[in-house]
Amino acid sequence: MVEGPLRLRLPSLPAPGRDPLEPKAGRDTVRRHNLSLVLRAVRDAGEITRAGVASRVGLTRAAISSLVEQLLELGYLSESGKTFSGQAGRPGTVLTVARTGVAGIGVEIDSHAVSVCVVDLAGTDRVRLVEHRDNRCAPPAQVLRRAALIAARALGAAEEQRLRPVGVALALPGLVASGTVRQAAALGWTRVPAEDSFAAALAALRPRRPALPVRSENEANLAALAELWFGGLGTVRTFLYLGGETAIGGALVIGGELLRGAHGFAGEIGHTPVAPDGPECRCGARGCLEQYAGRLALLRAAGVGGQDDPDTTGSVAELERRARGGDERAVAALERAGLMLGRVLAGAVNLFDPAAVVLGGIYRPLSPWLVPRAAGELSARAVSGLWPRAGTRLRPSSAAADAARGAAALVVRDVLTDPLAHAERAPVP
Amino acid sequence: MVEGPLRLRLPSLPAPGRDPLEPKAGRDTVRRHNLSLVLRAVRDAGEITRAGVASRVGLTRAAISSLVEQLLELGYLSESGKTFSGQAGRPGTVLTVARTGVAGIGVEIDSHAVSVCVVDLAGTDRVRLVEHRDNRCAPPAQVLRRAALIAARALGAAEEQRLRPVGVALALPGLVASGTVRQAAALGWTRVPAEDSFAAALAALRPRRPALPVRSENEANLAALAELWFGGLGTVRTFLYLGGETAIGGALVIGGELLRGAHGFAGEIGHTPVAPDGPECRCGARGCLEQYAGRLALLRAAGVGGQDDPDTTGSVAELERRARGGDERAVAALERAGLMLGRVLAGAVNLFDPAAVVLGGIYRPLSPWLVPRAAGELSARAVSGLWPRAGTRLRPSSAAADAARGAAALVVRDVLTDPLAHAERAPVP
Repeated sequence: MVEGPLRLRLPSLPAPGRDPLEPKAGRDTVRRHNLSLVLRAVRDAGEITRAGVASRVGLTRAAISSLVEQLLELGYLSESGKTFSGQAGRPGTVLTVARTGVAGIGVEIDSHAVSVCVVDLAGTDRVRLVEHRDNRCAPPAQVLRRAALIAARALGAAEEQRLRPVGVALALPGLVASGTVRQAAALGWTRVPAEDSFAAALAALRPRRPALPVRSENEANLAALAELWFGGLGTVRTFLYLGGETAIGGALVIGGELLRGAHGFAGEIGHTPVAPDGPECRCGARGCLEQYAGRLALLRAAGVGGQDDPDTTGSVAELERRARGGDERAVAALERAGLMLGRVLAGAVNLFDPAAVVLGGIYRPLSPWLVPRAAGELSARAVSGLWPRAGTRLRPSSAAADAARGAAALVVRDVLTDPLAHAERAPVP
Repeated sequence: MVEGPLRLRLPSLPAPGRDPLEPKAGRDTVRRHNLSLVLRAVRDAGEITRAGVASRVGLTRAAISSLVEQLLELGYLSESGKTFSGQAGRPGTVLTVARTGVAGIGVEIDSHAVSVCVVDLAGTDRVRLVEHRDNRCAPPAQVLRRAALIAARALGAAEEQRLRPVGVALALPGLVASGTVRQAAALGWTRVPAEDSFAAALAALRPRRPALPVRSENEANLAALAELWFGGLGTVRTFLYLGGETAIGGALVIGGELLRGAHGFAGEIGHTPVAPDGPECRCGARGCLEQYAGRLALLRAAGVGGQDDPDTTGSVAELERRARGGDERAVAALERAGLMLGRVLAGAVNLFDPAAVVLGGIYRPLSPWLVPRAAGELSARAVSGLWPRAGTRLRPSSAAADAARGAAALVVRDVLTDPLAHAERAPVP
């Protein structure tokens, strides 16, 4: 009846010692956990005294002091002499997370650009490099080498700011699992070992440096995490994200965690059937949502862009301009896409019961025309009765949240979850 | 960036002491956790020696002996003199979970019946009472009183077997949250405080007994858990369950846990739009899956049952008989339903990436006619390429798994998760 031994579900922590009854093993595990609690309490607060941390975390002042000392020694926290005057209790020095030291780097590769982002422990964007290029025309290995070159430049810029990225996360379109892009129609990639190729290329560019661990993740998943961490969702932690790029990427976030599915392929909402006998889709089926609300379909229906290159970045801006100017064909195409999005979202909302639906990617600028129709379908078809008003829970994504930042922040999250592991791997100078 | 303090995610365990740095608090928590590990190891193994438990759980022999002694004292385990001869190592006495003592009781209320089930620690069905009655014609409070009466009889029968149910779980159709049936079209219920009404009725029937805690859950969710725990899913722990009863109930299980969504209403797959301008549905929208593959729609399309009472239990058996006999209208209705199910399932599979889809409720006996068409749509439309062969991952539910048993087992799972809590609440005589 029960699903194997229940373990302490602390992401990234090593398994507890063989005999958890030994107090020492228990204490070590608890201390690592508490270091993480304290570091995250400081990070969430921005600026906070030791007393503030103690009350947030629910440990004694003495315990907090010991944990804070260790985090200061490891370079994760900074202390300033500033005191709070308006607060109750003794004024104390103020703790913040360090703005130097440990950082994460995110590398997003989509059909039109490579975007690289370095964030610090606080989640702040510290380096940003974006190169617009058509990644569909070059072989995957070449695209990944180019991405590694841009990442190496960003690493150099980060080091000049005394940041020390401890890992790279790649944001990639399509079905991404076990370090490989199984299939990404947006790039024309099939079975590309992206992590290994990128890691090798980066290592070749930085011959005397320790190799950085590289992970990869679907770009919609990372954009959704960025929305969760940096967007305007407030207390919402269970939501559906739709990123309209060349392909429609989707992501489900449940209680702040990505739903990956059994094989890591969850979120492919673009291939929900909306008209079983509709136009043939790249996936081989007919009448998928992508044939109505995907970027190409949308631009084609709106009469925007040439047939040869219908999905340059400029085309979406052109569609937006035309819709704003009242162009009937553009508005009609967007409204139809909104209607189809709404139908598919209604089914997804009934199945998954999110607290919000976020429209990102190309849908963000186009949301003024997409949202009304989509919201109408949602309120008509969502059975929970919790989607009554247009727009309250269906909203465009935040401009501050993108997949590259989400990727970089994913690396930093690992550090926040187990600061000691990363201190050990790369001792502070 | 991070979602509040990370806590030890042990379901049902009390929060750790205010100062987890104190070894004692840590040891207590670890010991409770280890008691659960040992109890579940014995339960999963069926029969096992202490040495076997030690190797399964990864603790020392000494630690295991101490934990086993406590579980024996609490009445959770039984020991017999039987020895294993074919095993390596010293022969030892054999441990099993106790067949008396702690148990769980599940009460399923659907439109046509009240089913009550008592399971023991091993998950075995020990008492089963089913009363067929039309629950749509009586006021909710009366239905719940009747259910309490049947439950009280089952409790009596359980006590005769020296079982001690420690809680009741209600399996209810529709949107169930916070102890209330918000809406259940199958029963015609709206905002029925089912837990409180049932608990009061049961307490009135057992005046001198301590009140049993009562919880409630959507019936499809519980049927899905029953499938996970007692069905034939093997290693599959992420799946989609569809229970075709009066309403189509759905449930998503991720890594062995129910996905509840933001408000507890996840799984309402019956209202996925399949034909936007199709027949009007009870939910107020048009062309929902339920209008094609729901019990009523299916029977109507097949020409089975009278108009006055189109969904008696016998009708599904009659539909099955006709389909088996080659009745064209029955087969056509089933094939159309299978097609529509397949389309909706394709979207759900793309979104959620389950390792299997299980068809329960009325779909189980009808699966020979539903599965081929549904599987065809799935393999044509599932983008992951992981649904290639008909029937391999789309399967009927197991006969041994039903919502009442799932409900009872849910109560027992709480005991397995924290044996000490339940021993304290109701000391063993």
